[in-house]
Amino acid sequence: MIRRLSLVGLGLLGGSVAKAARAEGLADEIVAVGRDRERLEPALRDGVVDRISTHLEEGVAGADFCLLATPVTTLTALLPVVWQALPADAVLTDVGSTKGSIVSAAERLGRDRPLAFVGSHPMAGSEQSGYRVSRRDLFNGATVILTPTERTDSHAVKRVGAFWEALGGRLVTLDPVTHDRATAAISHLPHLVADALVDAVVRMDPRFFEVAGRGFKDTTRIAASDAVVWREIFQDNRAALTEALAAFRAALDELDRLVAAGDAAAIERALDRIRRIREGVA
Amino acid sequence: MIRRLSLVGLGLLGGSVAKAARAEGLADEIVAVGRDRERLEPALRDGVVDRISTHLEEGVAGADFCLLATPVTTLTALLPVVWQALPADAVLTDVGSTKGSIVSAAERLGRDRPLAFVGSHPMAGSEQSGYRVSRRDLFNGATVILTPTERTDSHAVKRVGAFWEALGGRLVTLDPVTHDRATAAISHLPHLVADALVDAVVRMDPRFFEVAGRGFKDTTRIAASDAVVWREIFQDNRAALTEALAAFRAALDELDRLVAAGDAAAIERALDRIRRIREGVA
Repeated sequence: MIRRLSLVGLGLLGGSVAKAARAEGLADEIVAVGRDRERLEPALRDGVVDRISTHLEEGVAGADFCLLATPVTTLTALLPVVWQALPADAVLTDVGSTKGSIVSAAERLGRDRPLAFVGSHPMAGSEQSGYRVSRRDLFNGATVILTPTERTDSHAVKRVGAFWEALGGRLVTLDPVTHDRATAAISHLPHLVADALVDAVVRMDPRFFEVAGRGFKDTTRIAASDAVVWREIFQDNRAALTEALAAFRAALDELDRLVAAGDAAAIERALDRIRRIREGVA
Repeated sequence: MIRRLSLVGLGLLGGSVAKAARAEGLADEIVAVGRDRERLEPALRDGVVDRISTHLEEGVAGADFCLLATPVTTLTALLPVVWQALPADAVLTDVGSTKGSIVSAAERLGRDRPLAFVGSHPMAGSEQSGYRVSRRDLFNGATVILTPTERTDSHAVKRVGAFWEALGGRLVTLDPVTHDRATAAISHLPHLVADALVDAVVRMDPRFFEVAGRGFKDTTRIAASDAVVWREIFQDNRAALTEALAAFRAALDELDRLVAAGDAAAIERALDRIRRIREGVA
């Protein structure tokens, strides 16, 4: 299906793509591109990639399928270089957690040099990061959001969709703005809230962590994620995050008001409505 | 160790105590007490309890160790009846998620009739409930908080502590007020916040649930819990929950302010500080 697959960034996501693509035999050749040679070498030793490069243009040259798997801000910075270095018939995609800025940047670049770009976002992150924790089954059953626009080449959308499906992904298509609002609601807001929950305990009494049970650990697991990755996401998706925060504050205030008012039936109605909704989330 | 163990309430916690006590051979006889005979019968059929009763006084009569495992409000309502029906040398404990009100009620009852009561709180709940989901290993490695006061019989504290340790629990001792502040911070607040996170998505667009990944599911799992149980906890622990909510809102506002100000270094410092703290929570 793919002659040469170039992966820019070989952390949890890039590494897992390499392992899954190798296992499924999706590409004749897999090239990993990154800044630090020593971070790429384990994948070469594992036989997960065929070639490694610390030179961006060289690493993506001749690729017919290129995937950018770096943090959000780096994505946008690398994009113009990758855009010029890829062959004219290459398909380019990414794994960025926000899509508005990368898709806009790609469409601006496409005015000067047409290239088949399709935004992707596999919902398969973790609080852990790095090639070390990458897994060939990471995308098995994971939702992968594609964000084509009316300007996106439909053949490229099919190729990128088929690629993620071959890795076990379940495709959902959203426009970039809806993607950013949806991920603000179900990923970026919960992350900021988990951070605030941890900090709230510190503010009350850090000794309270000693009695934390599974509920607290599950609720705040994502607060152990990489600070730089999430700072970039929060900043890049600030507008949608602000909207999600407003919805959250309104929901929290309403629950707080119900508890303060002490109307047992009204509190139970609200909690039961939320319980049924949450049970419906597969 | 125990001649007759009476368990009032046979849901997730009471059922798991029965299964673990039976497996460990902690009691010669186990009696389960509840309102609905048919809810108690599966445990009798399983051989997990020796006798069942829907009559509270009869069910606890003659017990040398009695554990109350009902929701918080029911606990307080049952306490006076159980207090009079137990033999004078019995040890009484409970599994309530809040401790201030039950311990105060026990100390008031103790003025008229001395009885060895020790408040317990095994941190082993779940979003699921009922005997059906109870497990003999539920308390294995779980934190169990004991809340004796200066009026609590020290021999009873040792017996109750040994009981939970025999079930695999890890003991922590807190006074009732500290217990209620600690659980507000690490259990009740995260629960209310998980509820608000689910409701925030509903307020933005319920279709966004379709792209929820593991992060959202972990963070909001506890929002699928029983509405009556949690309404009672929120109401009973309202003062401490209000304090925890204030700490949370301050923490969230601070993070929101940092993101809005756009100071990358300051955001990363805050996220990294929180990441290190969260990683330290075993």
